[in-house]
Amino acid sequence: MVKEVTCSAPVNIAVVKYWGKRDNELILPTNSSLSVTLDQDDLRSTTTARLIDSEGADQLWLNGAQVEITPGSRLARCLDELRQLRAQSEATSPKDVKDAQLPESRRALVIASENNFPTAAGLASSASGFAALAFTVAQLFELQMSPERLSRIARQGSGSACRSLLGGFVAWDMGTAADGGDSGARMVAPQAHWPDLEAMICVVSDSKKGTSSTGGMAATVATSALLQHRIKDVVPARMAAMEEAIASRDFEKFSALTIADSNQFHAVCLDTTPPIFYLNDVSRAIIAVVEELNRSSRALGQGTLATYTFDAGPNAVIYAPRANMKTIVSTILNFFPLADPFNDPKGYLADKTGDLSPPSGFNGKVTPVWPQGSISRLICTRVGDGPRVLSTEVGKGLLTAEGSTRSMLNGQ
Amino acid sequence: MVKEVTCSAPVNIAVVKYWGKRDNELILPTNSSLSVTLDQDDLRSTTTARLIDSEGADQLWLNGAQVEITPGSRLARCLDELRQLRAQSEATSPKDVKDAQLPESRRALVIASENNFPTAAGLASSASGFAALAFTVAQLFELQMSPERLSRIARQGSGSACRSLLGGFVAWDMGTAADGGDSGARMVAPQAHWPDLEAMICVVSDSKKGTSSTGGMAATVATSALLQHRIKDVVPARMAAMEEAIASRDFEKFSALTIADSNQFHAVCLDTTPPIFYLNDVSRAIIAVVEELNRSSRALGQGTLATYTFDAGPNAVIYAPRANMKTIVSTILNFFPLADPFNDPKGYLADKTGDLSPPSGFNGKVTPVWPQGSISRLICTRVGDGPRVLSTEVGKGLLTAEGSTRSMLNGQ
Repeated sequence: MVKEVTCSAPVNIAVVKYWGKRDNELILPTNSSLSVTLDQDDLRSTTTARLIDSEGADQLWLNGAQVEITPGSRLARCLDELRQLRAQSEATSPKDVKDAQLPESRRALVIASENNFPTAAGLASSASGFAALAFTVAQLFELQMSPERLSRIARQGSGSACRSLLGGFVAWDMGTAADGGDSGARMVAPQAHWPDLEAMICVVSDSKKGTSSTGGMAATVATSALLQHRIKDVVPARMAAMEEAIASRDFEKFSALTIADSNQFHAVCLDTTPPIFYLNDVSRAIIAVVEELNRSSRALGQGTLATYTFDAGPNAVIYAPRANMKTIVSTILNFFPLADPFNDPKGYLADKTGDLSPPSGFNGKVTPVWPQGSISRLICTRVGDGPRVLSTEVGKGLLTAEGSTRSMLNGQ
Repeated sequence: MVKEVTCSAPVNIAVVKYWGKRDNELILPTNSSLSVTLDQDDLRSTTTARLIDSEGADQLWLNGAQVEITPGSRLARCLDELRQLRAQSEATSPKDVKDAQLPESRRALVIASENNFPTAAGLASSASGFAALAFTVAQLFELQMSPERLSRIARQGSGSACRSLLGGFVAWDMGTAADGGDSGARMVAPQAHWPDLEAMICVVSDSKKGTSSTGGMAATVATSALLQHRIKDVVPARMAAMEEAIASRDFEKFSALTIADSNQFHAVCLDTTPPIFYLNDVSRAIIAVVEELNRSSRALGQGTLATYTFDAGPNAVIYAPRANMKTIVSTILNFFPLADPFNDPKGYLADKTGDLSPPSGFNGKVTPVWPQGSISRLICTRVGDGPRVLSTEVGKGLLTAEGSTRSMLNGQ
């Protein structure tokens, strides 16, 4: 009996950054981190997992291309752990195993996974990808486990994947156990807690191939003198302050902490030998514009308009209350004209009440107008929920009934 | 009796960076620093100081333009202190005061100062400028003091000026006294100690007006969590290691420490709220090229070729043994073609023995070839000596006999 599940999982963007592993095998971090889960309606990884009716090697397609599952790889270990949990459940509840049938734990998996955003967008796809994979296979095996428990399995595929198992505002507590049993995701506040908070990703073109996260964080751990101070003396207090800021929906505090932590993450990258740079001149100019928006707004007694954070690449993620977005978007578009017209999916600019201009006193010389396409795309989204089951019917996902892969993106 | 002295003082470029004041009035630093004095034959500030035969307000010309000496300003306080020392010497040695003459300490100063490098080159002119001024006025007043003592006066004009009072390799010991009596320059090794070491400044064009050092370091002290760690836990050991590296002319060690400290300085700038950026994409590309030169050279067992450091701006300063300079210069010129032909003042490329190519295995894709003029100029220099007396004759310096200013640059 062929069995199949299709699920999606969200992207998350950290506001207290994960950078550094204390255990490379189990992916245990050197500090806790905290992220905002983004809306799957806009950005997601989708996975279809199918159990075929025979033994054999598992198969995987990623974005339409077959990928070998190397024994001992992070992916293989995730699948092994989920299969083992299935085998345990079969052993303890033999009623689950129909007579004369091959137990599910011994049947081969065929998996297809894809992202609805291009890899070239520079968004970390491994977090949503591993979260979707772990969630889908756990559903397929009907494993009874909390998202927190599952997050500790997904963590071993890609550290930040653990935070994509939950919606809303999610902490990854670093834990202390050597086996990683206490290192996983915890929901700090659900999606509905702060409905006013929206997010915009400024996709920045960069010719330079960046340093991989895995290689980069290993180099920082090995060589940065400042990282140890960040780990011990900065992050613990910052995590507590960030949880408070979220609990009280205090955007001023949330913004200050988010900016400080993004910049400190890039600071420890720069303190690495050889130094790691993820921000480029366009990133710096976006920072200058947002800082000047905030400065000019505060000068009018109107408080902070926007906060920014940058992952291991040049793209900016801007968080702001919805009411501020039209000023932010119109100002960004003025300095960084897009090559293609902005489609304004959230209707920020359609709202004709109030002014699109930056605060009076805004210094328009903070950066020149950049060549068209310096920001290639603006992705508008908001706080989202955790993984979703999309279908449990065979042939309705990323695999045809015959077992070949197909995309859900192109309406095939 | 009109009396006049003309002197020059060198530029210095730190390899352990000064960033942060613990006392803004006295300019006492939060950490010790260490610099290389560059050759005055190439880069210098020149000052003429004249005592006229009457009382009155002191006058100052900077680069040909008259500048007001604001009472209480750093400049005024430097002049006051030197004048006070002169008055003390007159009081204790009355033989110095000729009868019926106005004591020198009460006579007005006319000072003219200029740099032989354009301000647009982005080189810190305040260090050489204040060093030249303090040295020249001390000479004029015939003050018997060591360069170390004088460095503590110049420090109050511009912190890093204290290091330009000595040649060779110079430490600025931060000291602990509240009055700054132990915060000044000390020669770690003289110019002749490491004659093989040369320096090249890559002048990088930047449209962005940078944050001033004074404002920037105050912001870092106020907001960077990482700076405190740098001050307490990193710099003391790094100073000791750097002195050892210089004592033993260990270029591998000197290079590693110089690179690490430059990057850490820029890291604490980035850890500031709002963040301070001095490096731009051209700076990053220079770093990438030098790191790749070093990586490919080490892969051949040939050791480090070059080290780099960046002050509060986008210009790179590259230090290297002379034998490595032809490879470094030719590689830099390949990736960053100048607008005007390189004049090769030190004859690096004229040396036809050996190869101008980078080490075999050098990855030529480390950065694209940049638009012509991205580096506007290469300044080639080497380790230099301390301030020099150029003339004690009236009218032979930057002031005409009649007292107006003139430039020594244009052969007037």
